[in-house]
Amino acid sequence: MEFEESGIGEECGVFGCVAAGEWPTQLEVAQIITLGLVALQHRGQESAGIVTSDGFSPPTYTALKGMGLVNNAFKPEDLLKLRHGNLGIGHTRYSTTGMSELQNCQPFVVDTLHGKIAVAHNGELVNAAALRKKVMRHGVGLSTSSDSELITQLLALTPPMEELDAPDWVARIKNLMTETPTSYSLMVMHKDVIYAVRDPYGNRPLCIGRLVPISKLHGSGVGEDDTEGWVVSSESCSFQSIGAKYYREVQPGEIVQISKHGVKTLTVVLRPEGDPPAFCIFEYVYFARPDSIFEGQMVYTVRQRCGRQLAIEAPTDADVVSTVPESATPAALGYAQQSGLPYVEVLCKNRYVGRTFIQPNTRLRQLGVAKKFGALTDNFAGKRVVLIDDSIVRGNTISPIIKLLREAGATEVHIRVASPPVRFPCYMGINIPTKEELIANKPEFKDIAGYIGATSVRYLSVEGLVSAVRDGITSFREKDERIGSTTESTLKVGHCTACLTGKYPVELEW
Amino acid sequence: MEFEESGIGEECGVFGCVAAGEWPTQLEVAQIITLGLVALQHRGQESAGIVTSDGFSPPTYTALKGMGLVNNAFKPEDLLKLRHGNLGIGHTRYSTTGMSELQNCQPFVVDTLHGKIAVAHNGELVNAAALRKKVMRHGVGLSTSSDSELITQLLALTPPMEELDAPDWVARIKNLMTETPTSYSLMVMHKDVIYAVRDPYGNRPLCIGRLVPISKLHGSGVGEDDTEGWVVSSESCSFQSIGAKYYREVQPGEIVQISKHGVKTLTVVLRPEGDPPAFCIFEYVYFARPDSIFEGQMVYTVRQRCGRQLAIEAPTDADVVSTVPESATPAALGYAQQSGLPYVEVLCKNRYVGRTFIQPNTRLRQLGVAKKFGALTDNFAGKRVVLIDDSIVRGNTISPIIKLLREAGATEVHIRVASPPVRFPCYMGINIPTKEELIANKPEFKDIAGYIGATSVRYLSVEGLVSAVRDGITSFREKDERIGSTTESTLKVGHCTACLTGKYPVELEW
Amino acid sequence: MEFEESGIGEECGVFGCVAAGEWPTQLEVAQIITLGLVALQHRGQESAGIVTSDGFSPPTYTALKGMGLVNNAFKPEDLLKLRHGNLGIGHTRYSTTGMSELQNCQPFVVDTLHGKIAVAHNGELVNAAALRKKVMRHGVGLSTSSDSELITQLLALTPPMEELDAPDWVARIKNLMTETPTSYSLMVMHKDVIYAVRDPYGNRPLCIGRLVPISKLHGSGVGEDDTEGWVVSSESCSFQSIGAKYYREVQPGEIVQISKHGVKTLTVVLRPEGDPPAFCIFEYVYFARPDSIFEGQMVYTVRQRCGRQLAIEAPTDADVVSTVPESATPAALGYAQQSGLPYVEVLCKNRYVGRTFIQPNTRLRQLGVAKKFGALTDNFAGKRVVLIDDSIVRGNTISPIIKLLREAGATEVHIRVASPPVRFPCYMGINIPTKEELIANKPEFKDIAGYIGATSVRYLSVEGLVSAVRDGITSFREKDERIGSTTESTLKVGHCTACLTGKYPVELEW
Amino acid sequence: MEFEESGIGEECGVFGCVAAGEWPTQLEVAQIITLGLVALQHRGQESAGIVTSDGFSPPTYTALKGMGLVNNAFKPEDLLKLRHGNLGIGHTRYSTTGMSELQNCQPFVVDTLHGKIAVAHNGELVNAAALRKKVMRHGVGLSTSSDSELITQLLALTPPMEELDAPDWVARIKNLMTETPTSYSLMVMHKDVIYAVRDPYGNRPLCIGRLVPISKLHGSGVGEDDTEGWVVSSESCSFQSIGAKYYREVQPGEIVQISKHGVKTLTVVLRPEGDPPAFCIFEYVYFARPDSIFEGQMVYTVRQRCGRQLAIEAPTDADVVSTVPESATPAALGYAQQSGLPYVEVLCKNRYVGRTFIQPNTRLRQLGVAKKFGALTDNFAGKRVVLIDDSIVRGNTISPIIKLLREAGATEVHIRVASPPVRFPCYMGINIPTKEELIANKPEFKDIAGYIGATSVRYLSVEGLVSAVRDGITSFREKDERIGSTTESTLKVGHCTACLTGKYPVELEW
Repeated sequence: MEFEESGIGEECGVFGCVAAGEWPTQLEVAQIITLGLVALQHRGQESAGIVTSDGFSPPTYTALKGMGLVNNAFKPEDLLKLRHGNLGIGHTRYSTTGMSELQNCQPFVVDTLHGKIAVAHNGELVNAAALRKKVMRHGVGLSTSSDSELITQLLALTPPMEELDAPDWVARIKNLMTETPTSYSLMVMHKDVIYAVRDPYGNRPLCIGRLVPISKLHGSGVGEDDTEGWVVSSESCSFQSIGAKYYREVQPGEIVQISKHGVKTLTVVLRPEGDPPAFCIFEYVYFARPDSIFEGQMVYTVRQRCGRQLAIEAPTDADVVSTVPESATPAALGYAQQSGLPYVEVLCKNRYVGRTFIQPNTRLRQLGVAKKFGALTDNFAGKRVVLIDDSIVRGNTISPIIKLLREAGATEVHIRVASPPVRFPCYMGINIPTKEELIANKPEFKDIAGYIGATSVRYLSVEGLVSAVRDGITSFREKDERIGSTTESTLKVGHCTACLTGKYPVELEW
Repeated sequence: MEFEESGIGEECGVFGCVAAGEWPTQLEVAQIITLGLVALQHRGQESAGIVTSDGFSPPTYTALKGMGLVNNAFKPEDLLKLRHGNLGIGHTRYSTTGMSELQNCQPFVVDTLHGKIAVAHNGELVNAAALRKKVMRHGVGLSTSSDSELITQLLALTPPMEELDAPDWVARIKNLMTETPTSYSLMVMHKDVIYAVRDPYGNRPLCIGRLVPISKLHGSGVGEDDTEGWVVSSESCSFQSIGAKYYREVQPGEIVQISKHGVKTLTVVLRPEGDPPAFCIFEYVYFARPDSIFEGQMVYTVRQRCGRQLAIEAPTDADVVSTVPESATPAALGYAQQSGLPYVEVLCKNRYVGRTFIQPNTRLRQLGVAKKFGALTDNFAGKRVVLIDDSIVRGNTISPIIKLLREAGATEVHIRVASPPVRFPCYMGINIPTKEELIANKPEFKDIAGYIGATSVRYLSVEGLVSAVRDGITSFREKDERIGSTTESTLKVGHCTACLTGKYPVELEW
Repeated sequence: MEFEESGIGEECGVFGCVAAGEWPTQLEVAQIITLGLVALQHRGQESAGIVTSDGFSPPTYTALKGMGLVNNAFKPEDLLKLRHGNLGIGHTRYSTTGMSELQNCQPFVVDTLHGKIAVAHNGELVNAAALRKKVMRHGVGLSTSSDSELITQLLALTPPMEELDAPDWVARIKNLMTETPTSYSLMVMHKDVIYAVRDPYGNRPLCIGRLVPISKLHGSGVGEDDTEGWVVSSESCSFQSIGAKYYREVQPGEIVQISKHGVKTLTVVLRPEGDPPAFCIFEYVYFARPDSIFEGQMVYTVRQRCGRQLAIEAPTDADVVSTVPESATPAALGYAQQSGLPYVEVLCKNRYVGRTFIQPNTRLRQLGVAKKFGALTDNFAGKRVVLIDDSIVRGNTISPIIKLLREAGATEVHIRVASPPVRFPCYMGINIPTKEELIANKPEFKDIAGYIGATSVRYLSVEGLVSAVRDGITSFREKDERIGSTTESTLKVGHCTACLTGKYPVELEW
Repeated sequence: MEFEESGIGEECGVFGCVAAGEWPTQLEVAQIITLGLVALQHRGQESAGIVTSDGFSPPTYTALKGMGLVNNAFKPEDLLKLRHGNLGIGHTRYSTTGMSELQNCQPFVVDTLHGKIAVAHNGELVNAAALRKKVMRHGVGLSTSSDSELITQLLALTPPMEELDAPDWVARIKNLMTETPTSYSLMVMHKDVIYAVRDPYGNRPLCIGRLVPISKLHGSGVGEDDTEGWVVSSESCSFQSIGAKYYREVQPGEIVQISKHGVKTLTVVLRPEGDPPAFCIFEYVYFARPDSIFEGQMVYTVRQRCGRQLAIEAPTDADVVSTVPESATPAALGYAQQSGLPYVEVLCKNRYVGRTFIQPNTRLRQLGVAKKFGALTDNFAGKRVVLIDDSIVRGNTISPIIKLLREAGATEVHIRVASPPVRFPCYMGINIPTKEELIANKPEFKDIAGYIGATSVRYLSVEGLVSAVRDGITSFREKDERIGSTTESTLKVGHCTACLTGKYPVELEW
């Protein structure tokens, strides 16, 4: 699926870092967070922000925010301002609404009776509208339309703010979690602690890594004393680029305290009895970077299994298998392995084609998405091609690619999609087109092959997807005994497939 | 006084505009506010912001904020976004503190149970610390260090927010005014109304102008029907550049409602019995643009009177009178007229010298402020010069100028300062150096002439300044009968001279 | 090979466009050139420039130049300035030397007695120093260090400039070609004509495409009447993105005139008797985009053949074959096909890692290039990996990748390089590190495997590379009969392998 | 006269600096040039450039160019690149024509057989078209439309460039001066020398200053040993800001060599017998900064004399005298002194009004230039005002000012212009509107008072202007004996009044 034109988008990536040991340490916290955010860049490219704290009492916070990619948003000279941080959190954002764009940029910082807190958030509160009303009824004015500000004000609001020394932020976070079931993976920074929080349904990912000396990064003999710091991230793919070892996931409902003293589970807020977890299955299908690990398995491998399963469910009489570069490549390789058909590349992508400056009503418009691709004709001219895509949402980007292949000599183009049709909106953080825009809800879907110009079109079944995802999780929960209060709740496996099935994990308030 | 190096600064300028008549009108509200802010640029050059409303129900707000001068902060293409506004308020800011600079930029907008309000503020709440604590105790997190956010949250907070149709913003503003005596000149925009508010002491200026057809701008026969809109501004100097006629001042303690239906006094919040008004006398001395009108008189004329008074109090046996360009020129002309000495120009200022890029430890550093001036030698070589300055705060900018004049041939340089020595900090919105930095508090002040290299130094007396200011106000209060609820409170005359005398208009809380 | 850190770079990309038919046409010439340059972005990313002409008599030229990627260098509003062009040429540049960077940006335009000419150039004149001296001896001052200015001045200089109506630019170009044998692929624009020129040795690529209605782009029934315009480009990969059909290569030594009337060979300047052509073999190995066509064959296919040949020359006892993404992928797939070993992906590249802002002396520095990659562990842990790279120049980027794979669980890492060792400098347009920096010239090369940490290292032989390149050319020359003056010279096949063998196609002057 | 709207503009300012003594010295040459250019900013605000040389053999040149004001064009980090210069020249430009704007930015640098030369130029060659043709006929392509490039190529061209060690640049400059009589004030930098050149008619100003220790800047006891360096500048007003003492003017036709060894006259190229010098009289009237010195007198004083002369020629029965701020102030003070009428300020200028972003067809447009001014009503309401302007060119900026004064209460507004009507175009470097646009050539000029809305309008006579200028020159020429080859030619006094009288100093070629 062509990301830019698909109209589908994850909301955000979050990344935090705490230096271990006595402060001030020499750990380059701000740079680590920046690199961590760069590795999460696929989760949001509109703005980026970092807040660091020196961790002292009272702490000094330093913030940096900017529009665009991380590398554009922060200039090297700006990063120097943050250098003396001992801990910090960062955020990269997918899209904003509301008046002042930079204003919506996270992390959101507020001053309270008990000092400043900073919040970075990935997800979307299903009952945000009701919560906004509640906060405003209390007399609070909200300066942005973002859930993050809402969360900070909810945290500040209840339980009633007393002028004590100890504000009990954990009680406040727990309280917040009882007021909104999902979806959020949160980091709350206060003074010298980061609280890493995942909603009880575990809808958005969040995991922990350990910073070790680079020389010991890949060895197995790493002791407690080698810990240089801790990181929290939406995805583990960010660990390689900063020299961290994967430690574990934050469990659904868990509040983890991360400080210079280490990582500690404070509590686990349970789901209603009987409710399974609801980890977003589209993280596997499309959003996450393939080298990330969820539920003990690598995303790449899951995608490859989806391709294999697709080959079983939807075999094709064809000559070659290929991919729409490059998110569908693991599935295509899986399809090829399972089917025995040779894998070839059929398209060459021009990475430099960016925001289009093409005027309307010109012949160039007619080229559409095809102008981003070159056809590797020798590999498919005169052949029957199976083209694997990871998902089809609106159906308007695959069509010109098929046309391009056909015109360049493919005798047949069979589309095989490594996920089921997207039919329902998401209210938990994914930006999906309206129901009407989804190709699977259109009358044309009956003859989707004809509509997009393919020889045939087949999708992976929901069951196929779920089993491809779960096949690798078997022994995972047992292994993870580091979380003290492990309950049955955290051991269950469950995924949100709402956009495919319409079955939402919680009842939606309107 | 050289502004940039004086270390003294006014906090802000505010400007609002409402189109008259049925909406949508053709009045270019956003452009008028922008030009209005440009005319208030001397009150703050660090950032600028505008919020417009279409005035419909519910209203759509559009905001624009940027760093630097108004002309840099807003690009023409940005202004186009605001063009359909029927009313709006703007702000130009002197300096920011706190983490995220753009975030502190005003106007501050928050969403409440009864819709959005936007606030622009000039001044400094004397009891801000206590009010912040109060707001935070209520459970509100504050995202900036600015008084403006504090004001919006106070307005949202009390009286308790009910889910009624009519939120009674006026009661909320009155409530705010009972909680903080000074200093603020405020504009609060809600839906289709701007409330223009001046604190009971009238510490900061605020006045109203009427937009008329350009062709009728200066004639006297302007009828009610000619009103195209209303503007509110920190200073009347902004009226000429947008085609508005001066209408009247907002009175101390007054809440004025400005809408498409016109201008209406809602209430006047009184000062404690016996307290006189406390309009900042430094507005006359230094801050305001000379063509602005306060209390019925033109600032230029007051400065000229200060110069005359100075000539009476501190006559000089000299050959010529001149000015440190260009804020001291009216006083210098006044001194020349009173003393009978000829007025000449002695310095030519280079307007293009900006932020210095000069490396430390070079010979150029030694030139100091003198590198901004060229000496008009022919006018003073071999002569005894009286050099008028409007004020001397830290005393480090006048010194190199005196040196320059002497070396270029002045036989004597007598400094005459058209205001008394600044000795005390201001807590009401003016950024004055710490007590220790003020030259008048230093041991060297005993021999100030020797310290700065002058032949002699004399200051205007406090009494002289006050009488120069009040001499032109005589008949002013009577004239202004358009404010309905005129009480004795508004008819009194009084000025804050705290920075000169240490007598603050209200008790300061700590 | 990691491009950014390899220290090797192609000099430039050139692209021209002429609208067919009577002018003014509706063809969006400026946008076509811009998109053409974007497709050539891999050939140069430092600056970009476009000059368009309305083609009238006298013509109006409009120019646009900027630093950085094409999308950054030109803003949409700037492109609008160029919109009325009927023809134009563009350039994207790899690196500049000299004082003023923007000044070195091409195309270079000069005014002459016979009107303005604009020149865009890819290559490097082997005798530039002597030519500069010649021009300067004539009394011309040169304002840049670029060959392009030198070429414009040489064109202006000889034959002597007479005040005739017809300046005979073709004679001037021919004269230039006799003065410098190589290397240049040139476009010279004058009034309503573009002359496309390739040096007699054909060292740099240049080809022609035909703009047709998008609807007829891939059909075969395109008639003469369907021609909407002509384009000239360094590589044919740019044709897909603008809707052009590949027409033919400009032949070594050929001067082609392109105008609204069509494409016409004017002359072919011959090489010295016996000299074969010398098309840069590194265009196949590394520089060109894989979907480009040279000498009748697709670059992708040549690279795949290199991989196959490498599998024959250097077979490996291993479990999987993989690539250093992504330039080596065709060779890796070829190696896998020939060897029968399975092809897997082992590395996931983070495209957002850009210019590094990492401070020296931090632990992050130690991560080196590995911070750009995520390991797809499941695909290779516990396995013996053959890792294909397209070339190894300095040997310092492959080393951390090998380390990463080993530490992530690869039991063996065999490096197979799909080209021979680079040992000699290039004087014809490729920026190669100094002889001392080339790993193949270092003492460590004797134990290259030990030096870079690989289990084994093998290179493709020069003979193997040449045969892999030539195997696809067999019948190519005959086919291309559209060039009128085809002589034996143009039918020969020959490649420059100087950087591998030290055998330069022409004698080098010093 | 309102500069921005007058449509009249000087072409450029030039500034050079050479460190004295053995190199490398510690003199901050690049910063001195930058500050020097800032002081010449009124002569050109479109672009700025600096080229420095380390003066070694062969020299390294470093260049910096940028658009806009000097402070915008150069960033501090850029200036650091230039810091090791021992000498350098700079340029600030009024306006550009031609394709690439930055390309036209000076100084222009070319490489020649004898090394690089850099040229900065103020003026306009009267026979530029013929010279361009000559250069191009020689076979040189010209890449810009600027005279500066033309001059560099002429210098490179003749006498024929031989491969000698000594290129004899002085002979080349002399040769150039015989080919073009006027108008140019030039600096040519080669290796370790700056040649400062003024055309034989002395049409544009150029003067020399001596850098001394800041502590000795204004004393008289400065010895030879105190020389820290030399500067050359269009105007002496730049000397104060860099710590230089005025040394002397470059004489008409003089070539001065400036090096670390000091200042030396090389030769004086004579005018044709009988031709007087033709120093631009408008430099006195309008362009120059008032603290600059020309022909031994301060510009401010000349303007004051013009005002006095105007009071004699055109007395007025009025109450007060005032100025259009601020270029006309010296003349207004002179008029007041001579007439005995009191001088007052009537207008307050808003310095922040910049490029207008006002949309067409709005009521704001109608305000015109008046939106830049505030009326100081108290000073003139009910009075008859004499308003002094320095010149009236198109007559469309004074009109709204008169209207503003009248509407604000002036009973009469008498315009007195301190220079004669401008009637003819300038071909020597001043950008004057076309003949048709000049108000003095329009039919309305017969009733100019009625046309602009004034009570009366009177101009200074040409004779009055000339005598006001010359009255201060009397003893000047004798004093300046430092120029060795003083001939009668340099002792003559003469001014170009072509724009007022149509009498051009040289015959114009077409």
